[in-house]
Amino acid sequence: MMLIPGPVNVPRSVAQNSTVIVNHRSEKFRGVVAQLEQLLKGAFFSSRVALLSGSGTLAVESMVFSLLKRGEKVIVLTYGEFSERLLDSVVKRGASPVVYRKPFGEIFSEDEIKEILDINKDATAIAFVHNETSTGMAFRNLRRVVGLAKDRGLKVLVDSVSGFGAYEIRVNDWNIDAVATGSQKALASVPGMGLVGLSEEGIRNLQDDAPNYLNLKLHLKFQDRRETPFTPAVGVFFSTLRATELLHQEGVERRWKRHEACARFVRSITSKAGFSLLGNESNFSNTVVAGSPPISPKSMIDELAKRGIEISGGMGELKDKIVRIGTLGMIDDRAVLRLRYALSDILKLDLNEVPTSDCKLPEVIAQEIDWDN
Amino acid sequence: MMLIPGPVNVPRSVAQNSTVIVNHRSEKFRGVVAQLEQLLKGAFFSSRVALLSGSGTLAVESMVFSLLKRGEKVIVLTYGEFSERLLDSVVKRGASPVVYRKPFGEIFSEDEIKEILDINKDATAIAFVHNETSTGMAFRNLRRVVGLAKDRGLKVLVDSVSGFGAYEIRVNDWNIDAVATGSQKALASVPGMGLVGLSEEGIRNLQDDAPNYLNLKLHLKFQDRRETPFTPAVGVFFSTLRATELLHQEGVERRWKRHEACARFVRSITSKAGFSLLGNESNFSNTVVAGSPPISPKSMIDELAKRGIEISGGMGELKDKIVRIGTLGMIDDRAVLRLRYALSDILKLDLNEVPTSDCKLPEVIAQEIDWDN
Repeated sequence: MMLIPGPVNVPRSVAQNSTVIVNHRSEKFRGVVAQLEQLLKGAFFSSRVALLSGSGTLAVESMVFSLLKRGEKVIVLTYGEFSERLLDSVVKRGASPVVYRKPFGEIFSEDEIKEILDINKDATAIAFVHNETSTGMAFRNLRRVVGLAKDRGLKVLVDSVSGFGAYEIRVNDWNIDAVATGSQKALASVPGMGLVGLSEEGIRNLQDDAPNYLNLKLHLKFQDRRETPFTPAVGVFFSTLRATELLHQEGVERRWKRHEACARFVRSITSKAGFSLLGNESNFSNTVVAGSPPISPKSMIDELAKRGIEISGGMGELKDKIVRIGTLGMIDDRAVLRLRYALSDILKLDLNEVPTSDCKLPEVIAQEIDWDN
Repeated sequence: MMLIPGPVNVPRSVAQNSTVIVNHRSEKFRGVVAQLEQLLKGAFFSSRVALLSGSGTLAVESMVFSLLKRGEKVIVLTYGEFSERLLDSVVKRGASPVVYRKPFGEIFSEDEIKEILDINKDATAIAFVHNETSTGMAFRNLRRVVGLAKDRGLKVLVDSVSGFGAYEIRVNDWNIDAVATGSQKALASVPGMGLVGLSEEGIRNLQDDAPNYLNLKLHLKFQDRRETPFTPAVGVFFSTLRATELLHQEGVERRWKRHEACARFVRSITSKAGFSLLGNESNFSNTVVAGSPPISPKSMIDELAKRGIEISGGMGELKDKIVRIGTLGMIDDRAVLRLRYALSDILKLDLNEVPTSDCKLPEVIAQEIDWDN
């Protein structure tokens, strides 16, 4: 069982759909494009969703190149490895970033963001990572952070690659210009698609000078006729359509709750087991639990691996210092209990806590996931 | 059966591999990256092969952004729809293209290219499409065209998305800087990967200011440690590794011959059936047979569809004027004979020609392809 911050274990029907290949200019595939965007708009609560063949980084970089202008002053908040990558895209775009940086393991408060916005009245946009996979921390107050920036008329670009599907995000209601994610995180599809949800304001702000592969305007134009501009990863589209159907079957609000409940449980048992966790109640991630374990990170990774559970180590400046446990995708009570048993066994502890019912999958979806391998 | 210019029908084991998901930072996946690059270097006869998650267009655009400099004078030869897309990438790159354009259905002679090179002594690069899917025409004399440009010290960028695997291409011996292709053409994998073969000179010419997703230098740096910079389309990588193993099992020279023999057969029977084909013996494509059929394009597409054979219509300025028959991937004697029977039936003709033995697949691979659906 993979408890890493993506790719995630996927339901059987999602994996099987990857084997389908059809002509991407056929009516059958046009139906997939149309249904996929329609269902995803419901999950993003957005006006449009661009469907890209590639990784979450492609989605982020497409958002940056399509929504920012060369030379434009952009506030970039960084607080981990993926924040640095977002910043790097802004630099490559030729925009002028004003960077505010927190050490890995900290995050910005609303007061700090207000101050940053007040100091940079000439900035026209803000870009940040919603959920930092490198540290297991997130803006749990996303709505308010977005509101602060929108109140001042800024464009808001949110990298929620590892957050989308695991937290409340409402693109149109909150007037976020764009939210970028990937197929293989909380959406629980196979890796190979990047997705960008856009509000009407975001759509109006789309530029047209991005490289074609990163050009969201071009993608939306083709999607208007139910196509993609370039040959898509056809099988990945079929998988992602199936994963999105399952998201709707579960209900997006219920999925947010499941992620929060399962992550909360994993934070609780690891904390009781002597892990020193990054983040706290106000900023913990719903998709990654990160911290230094009571035995060395390497030993913890190896011992869990012996018990069939794959977790990740630290990255960037936290390499070899922490472990990261993914709590996203189809994560449920069975998965986190298996982790509890393994930790109890490794550390010779009696961790007898049980997850809440919010951490359960609907039975019909649970049947499609076998956590025993 | 799909006889379109991609995506192509794939062998069963190639499709099945798409369902595999593992941690992309695991030893297992590092093995896939290493094997895939190693085998593909053999097929490109190149020093390196960048492995990208995305379409063939991504490969082309990455080549353009990574090998050309802003403001650099680049000769671009265009002779069809995909040539125009290549040109568009050069423009988006901010290079200064000098464009030589042929009407759809014509191509440049060696003498014309010599003249173009003589007129533009200050150009530092040339970029062109090897095999035009929109017209079924190709530079069958690729080696000599490349030689003309290399003799003058130009960088040579070849978009061979639909050509690679179907013609002799030797990146190192011919000193081509870069050749871009996609997984879902003559390589016969599922769609979702772009590949760029590079010579030593091409590697030395790599710039570092491309958007990260298009940055070949970054990709090669990660591949040095058997990883990809971003989460790859894991299943597509497994499929493409399997497809590349099958390419080596068949033998790359034999695959070139198979494509030529099958395309020659399809040109012959369609010609006898009254199609007016684009191109001629000196410039016909090994992967697409294009032309106007003896009945309307729409009727021909519909009649073949009734008989279970899917072909494509024209694109760009040839939309609704021609049909295009893909002859790539696992195309073999059984596939082209099925097309012959269907054409004979539709047009009430006796097309009794048979393909040469070069158009056959090795038996062990043929068993993995069922042309009856």
